[in-house]
Amino acid sequence: MSSDRPELPAPLERINRQVVLRQRPDGMLTNDDVEVVEGEMPTLGDREILIRMVYIQMDAAVRSWLDEGEGYLPAVKIGEAVRSGGMGRVIESNHPDIAVGEWCGGGLPGWNSWAVADGDSPLVNAFPADHDALFQIAVISSPAATAYFGLTDLGEIKEGDSVLISAAAGSTGSVAVQVARNLGATVVGIAGSDDKCRWVESLGAEVCLNRHTDDLAARLKEIRPRGFDIYFDNVGGPILDLALRRLAIGARVVIIGAISMYNEKGRPPGPSNYLNLINKQAKMAGFQGLAYVDRYPEAWDQMWEWAAEGKMEYRTDMKYGLDSCVEQLNSLFTGANTGKALVQLCEDPGPGPY
Amino acid sequence: MSSDRPELPAPLERINRQVVLRQRPDGMLTNDDVEVVEGEMPTLGDREILIRMVYIQMDAAVRSWLDEGEGYLPAVKIGEAVRSGGMGRVIESNHPDIAVGEWCGGGLPGWNSWAVADGDSPLVNAFPADHDALFQIAVISSPAATAYFGLTDLGEIKEGDSVLISAAAGSTGSVAVQVARNLGATVVGIAGSDDKCRWVESLGAEVCLNRHTDDLAARLKEIRPRGFDIYFDNVGGPILDLALRRLAIGARVVIIGAISMYNEKGRPPGPSNYLNLINKQAKMAGFQGLAYVDRYPEAWDQMWEWAAEGKMEYRTDMKYGLDSCVEQLNSLFTGANTGKALVQLCEDPGPGPY
Repeated sequence: MSSDRPELPAPLERINRQVVLRQRPDGMLTNDDVEVVEGEMPTLGDREILIRMVYIQMDAAVRSWLDEGEGYLPAVKIGEAVRSGGMGRVIESNHPDIAVGEWCGGGLPGWNSWAVADGDSPLVNAFPADHDALFQIAVISSPAATAYFGLTDLGEIKEGDSVLISAAAGSTGSVAVQVARNLGATVVGIAGSDDKCRWVESLGAEVCLNRHTDDLAARLKEIRPRGFDIYFDNVGGPILDLALRRLAIGARVVIIGAISMYNEKGRPPGPSNYLNLINKQAKMAGFQGLAYVDRYPEAWDQMWEWAAEGKMEYRTDMKYGLDSCVEQLNSLFTGANTGKALVQLCEDPGPGPY
Repeated sequence: MSSDRPELPAPLERINRQVVLRQRPDGMLTNDDVEVVEGEMPTLGDREILIRMVYIQMDAAVRSWLDEGEGYLPAVKIGEAVRSGGMGRVIESNHPDIAVGEWCGGGLPGWNSWAVADGDSPLVNAFPADHDALFQIAVISSPAATAYFGLTDLGEIKEGDSVLISAAAGSTGSVAVQVARNLGATVVGIAGSDDKCRWVESLGAEVCLNRHTDDLAARLKEIRPRGFDIYFDNVGGPILDLALRRLAIGARVVIIGAISMYNEKGRPPGPSNYLNLINKQAKMAGFQGLAYVDRYPEAWDQMWEWAAEGKMEYRTDMKYGLDSCVEQLNSLFTGANTGKALVQLCEDPGPGPY
């Protein structure tokens, strides 16, 4: 892999490169909508920490934050760095509980090479210098809580349930497949290529359908004539509409996003078959991570436990350098990536001292 | 009123007139799709009862049963009487627990002037000869369970909740307004005329908006800036889409039907704003009466109790004769009716003996 990498900036070079928004995207984000600039180095205040960002994590929500609207966070302003999660090394610390050399994630550092974070914020998490940063970012960060609470709390999953998961080779989908399997459910996945499908099956799905080549309507009916107890949806659009026709009595539809729709212009139509919720005594619940902040550790502990037992695998899809952020974000929507899409900004500077 | 009535057949005349389906409707049901015929008088078997139907009740589900599709009941066949609920007098009884002269409802007798019912069926309910048949049919039959369990079980209603109810002057909506008020919630209604709105307000809604003349988006935002904890939806279409933008955090959307959509051709688009369920940590649940059959008496007892306390009013919208069935069914969709739409087939023959 390393031969494909562009030359990355020296980790400890104190230059804050950032990707700022120049205009609101019309559909997919393009490199014309943003600009890579040299911003000011952030300055460190009391109880704050200075982080050299090593990994930027790509989440579909990043795209939604670029549109003006009634989201749960205000839209990114023109001229601001694109908002996103990420993880880096603590290079300086004014916080008594966070040591130089530790990993630090959370707090939405954005598409910046350097960030300052409030060490007291509940959204900022520091980890020991030898922490498994990639498991943290690929599984623990957002996928863990979304997959775990989406399936347990909203999905009311129980042993023997039949679960359908779309975008099953994506970061959240691939964790959800394993959560469902680990909790005793049977899983059918939907993914975008045969390679992805084989990986999803290796994670424990009984079968994974290729949305480009399989006749989903016929196959879903054939595989689960009784319908699905849970549909875990991250795509919206026609696949959601199809799944709504294949619900078992009392089914739970868990909506975590709609990657097929975020880049559409205007307001795409909603699911015509929502009235099947009546026929099937079913419900459709929207998952919002903010509602579970206090319970995150419950999901995290479970993920680490499963990982130790060899029951929680992950893949990362890594690109290199701030210039690749736009392409890597779009990979979430085009289906180009498998597992957790990341951008590495520099070599890991290691645990210090620096 | 009686001067407007067409001459009705003698109640005890043993001729079974019925309205049978001749072709599947394309949009609204028309008189060309059905035919009033003289069918065979049903014959009475063991433990069965013979009922002279006095009232036919109009429910939106009647229209849905005429389409082929994946409903919870099979479609009415061509040549069969249109399926619907109704209530009549027991004229003959082969069942030891059901006396001649009692009222009997349930069991989907259809658009027939005479019906035979299985006295042992849990769906067939007999009542003493002096029972309040109109309260039974207008409130207790389907509206009671739908409004009560829709708001309590799916809506998780609690004192102080802010509840929005569409089609609030309809049979279910008008009961739901009173259930919500009686349980300590504040209610905003939406109805189709100023007269209907004033009636809904007299039932306890703080305000009822006229969907034809009020700017719903602006008014809903103004009346409840924080949004609604519960949206009780019987209309679908643009009003559902609008309500999805006005949800409070943790809101529950209870879907009991979609009267704006049942007569549309093809598959009308679903609610574009369903993704707001994510932003608002909200859920949307479909109400299916069959799921509550065992608990119906809980709702019924509560309705009779409220009625005795003067806290459960109702209106009937009565038409006369089998020939008016089509028009009266359509009144549910055009907004022409207020309260429970009924068709009276004959004068009440009274408690007998006959």
